[in-house]
Amino acid sequence: MILNKDDLHASLSDPVLDSMNFLNEITCRYPDAVSFAPGRPHEGYLGVDDIFGFLQGYLAHLARGGIPPEQVLSAVYQYGPTAGRIRELIADWLRKDEGIQVAAEAIVVTVGCQEAMLLALRALFTGPDDVLVVPAPCYVGITGAARLLDIPTVAVPEREDGIRAADVAVAVTAERARGKRPKAIYLMPDHANPSGATMSPQARTDMINMAESLDVLLLEDSPYRLVSGGLRLPALKSADHDCRVVYLGSFAKTAFPGARVGFAVADQQVRDACGRVGLLADELSKVKSMVTVNTPSLSQAAIAGLLIAADGRLSEFNTRTARHYEAALRTTLEQLEKHFPPEGGAHVRWNRPSGGFFITISLPFKADNAALTRSAECGVIWTPMSYFYPQGGGENMIRLSFSYLKLNEIAEGIGRLARFVELETLGPQGEQPGWHA
Amino acid sequence: MILNKDDLHASLSDPVLDSMNFLNEITCRYPDAVSFAPGRPHEGYLGVDDIFGFLQGYLAHLARGGIPPEQVLSAVYQYGPTAGRIRELIADWLRKDEGIQVAAEAIVVTVGCQEAMLLALRALFTGPDDVLVVPAPCYVGITGAARLLDIPTVAVPEREDGIRAADVAVAVTAERARGKRPKAIYLMPDHANPSGATMSPQARTDMINMAESLDVLLLEDSPYRLVSGGLRLPALKSADHDCRVVYLGSFAKTAFPGARVGFAVADQQVRDACGRVGLLADELSKVKSMVTVNTPSLSQAAIAGLLIAADGRLSEFNTRTARHYEAALRTTLEQLEKHFPPEGGAHVRWNRPSGGFFITISLPFKADNAALTRSAECGVIWTPMSYFYPQGGGENMIRLSFSYLKLNEIAEGIGRLARFVELETLGPQGEQPGWHA
Repeated sequence: MILNKDDLHASLSDPVLDSMNFLNEITCRYPDAVSFAPGRPHEGYLGVDDIFGFLQGYLAHLARGGIPPEQVLSAVYQYGPTAGRIRELIADWLRKDEGIQVAAEAIVVTVGCQEAMLLALRALFTGPDDVLVVPAPCYVGITGAARLLDIPTVAVPEREDGIRAADVAVAVTAERARGKRPKAIYLMPDHANPSGATMSPQARTDMINMAESLDVLLLEDSPYRLVSGGLRLPALKSADHDCRVVYLGSFAKTAFPGARVGFAVADQQVRDACGRVGLLADELSKVKSMVTVNTPSLSQAAIAGLLIAADGRLSEFNTRTARHYEAALRTTLEQLEKHFPPEGGAHVRWNRPSGGFFITISLPFKADNAALTRSAECGVIWTPMSYFYPQGGGENMIRLSFSYLKLNEIAEGIGRLARFVELETLGPQGEQPGWHA
Repeated sequence: MILNKDDLHASLSDPVLDSMNFLNEITCRYPDAVSFAPGRPHEGYLGVDDIFGFLQGYLAHLARGGIPPEQVLSAVYQYGPTAGRIRELIADWLRKDEGIQVAAEAIVVTVGCQEAMLLALRALFTGPDDVLVVPAPCYVGITGAARLLDIPTVAVPEREDGIRAADVAVAVTAERARGKRPKAIYLMPDHANPSGATMSPQARTDMINMAESLDVLLLEDSPYRLVSGGLRLPALKSADHDCRVVYLGSFAKTAFPGARVGFAVADQQVRDACGRVGLLADELSKVKSMVTVNTPSLSQAAIAGLLIAADGRLSEFNTRTARHYEAALRTTLEQLEKHFPPEGGAHVRWNRPSGGFFITISLPFKADNAALTRSAECGVIWTPMSYFYPQGGGENMIRLSFSYLKLNEIAEGIGRLARFVELETLGPQGEQPGWHA
């Protein structure tokens, strides 16, 4: 049987998917290139034995708590509740590390942050008039989930310090004027993927105030906070007195990616036609029962063991990891300064993120797939920023991710990038100094 | 902030969810009742050490295969490919145990069978005219996933031997006549949940032929095959020469539920507008990248270790488990015969499934939530069959699940069911023999 692609769901024909496929192909075709493309976490400082240790630690914790042996086995062996088994431990950590005070009942444990996004979008968006506001550029996980559910998005351009409340307010008002219902704004306040931008303290306060005054929800996603050095600004959720923020979390960067454990904090109240009141978290659980039923008990046990071992202080647990990312960021910036000095005239500009995995670079030419192929031939791969602008934009820009590279690979890669840029700006007729050397 | 339930997605107001909540509440309110409600797997014969052993076995297998140590760590620690890490092992098992010959590339590893259902539905269904054909009664996982994606369903009544091709053909033709596109038929050919019905060999052949002649796909879901005793009829997928079957699989019953590993086999070809041909599995992977990104490496490693330990023969690995379920089924049937003898006049009828977890019982009165509450007061809980008929039906019927109960609990539970039925049929004015005793 042969199916026609046109008969499959429209989200499968999205150009972003083709772009990502193209990036994968390029990576396979040029295995010796230094790739600044994947936002993959550093291999970390854990070994397999540590993971076994966390599993055993969680089981010992249950046994100490008086759980009978057969129920201890169930904690890894069996299905668990749809909302998750380890919500108390997550609530404890959020309180200690993030100043976020929520009841365990307001948490839903998910298969990575991606599922948390999908659950939130599915619960909150009901028809074609409901629109999601996203920054431009935007993380592809949220725009992908929106396309999967046929939810239209409206892009608000990011400034140097991230998405701004005033810009969002203009977009929300304009959407309402044309009969649409902007129900939520997605944002990554710290070291955003892809731009690397971080919202200022004032911008955070403004955003919460805007959400209250315009009666919208904020979807806060902040996977890089606890693995970044420097000053940590407060999470929006920690100052969310009117429950305007649905917090979307992940343990992929702070614990380990192979567990695929994320969560949503949804302490908003939901009132039904009979006046009964529950939590939005309960509704997200219902959605989850139709998506993955429950998050693997085995994965939750591993994360629980790590949270117990860290006494709920993932920030401290991640000190060494954060230092690694800080060094990678610093090295990337230093190498950029070395290879693209202000007096060099290459017209290459970049931002200076305070943490996270990503730097944005503006090039003096179009950074499209053709340019990416030529760059790969020069031995360096990056992500065209245009992939993150579903409504167009970022044509001259690229995203560099330095998260999993070694410092010497970063230095080598930026050197190759400089040679590629030189070659591109000289043009095919010009001299080609260096890059053959 | 208070949200109105009416402003949330319609799937959240589905009565099935309220029913399931009600069932959970009843179970909590009557902790001493014998519950025939959950289709929960037996605790099995594995211990925590076995699970660690499987993880270690998989890592040793990788090391033996020449994978360098740091990549061995990655196999549990890191993100994996969206389509899964253990597709070769699954293909090997499907070939050995099920006679299903598929390339590893046609497999997508998922977070339980539920995610496989969601991926298949999302990829295949594009708009309100696309309809899914389901049996009545039907497993709530598939109807739930359909509601989540706003996909309309058409119910075809099951016969004693399951859903029949001729009945499906009538429904497909009728839907087409009213301008709809029935794209796929969901079915559970073996020991269906909830009815327990099994399709005959002829019914299987007819179904495949019908799918070819009417140009529709079949979604085959068969979680209980390898944990049931007796003769195993061939999976539809094993005789699927025209690639009409998308096979939806689960390791929850054959390995362990806490890993939450399932999969889809989708070897259908997909041709795009430029004539390029790929596999439906590739499209399901793209959907997955927007749902859970990838299945936990940790979970996949555990299942891989078990598949390696069993040399791809899960049927043999599950001999003891299958014997347990067989004994539970036999005991349930024996106890029903004992307590509801033909000469007893209670007008209680039941089917005789050849395996699986479920039996259907027809009662001489309405088996609704009110009756369930009275039954729980008698110390026995079951699932009203009406929960599984989204378009109405099954009002006098109940589903008994015996999968996780001990044999003495089954005997006690059926005894209590008999007392409850006696009480109901005598009415409130009659004698109430026994149940206070």
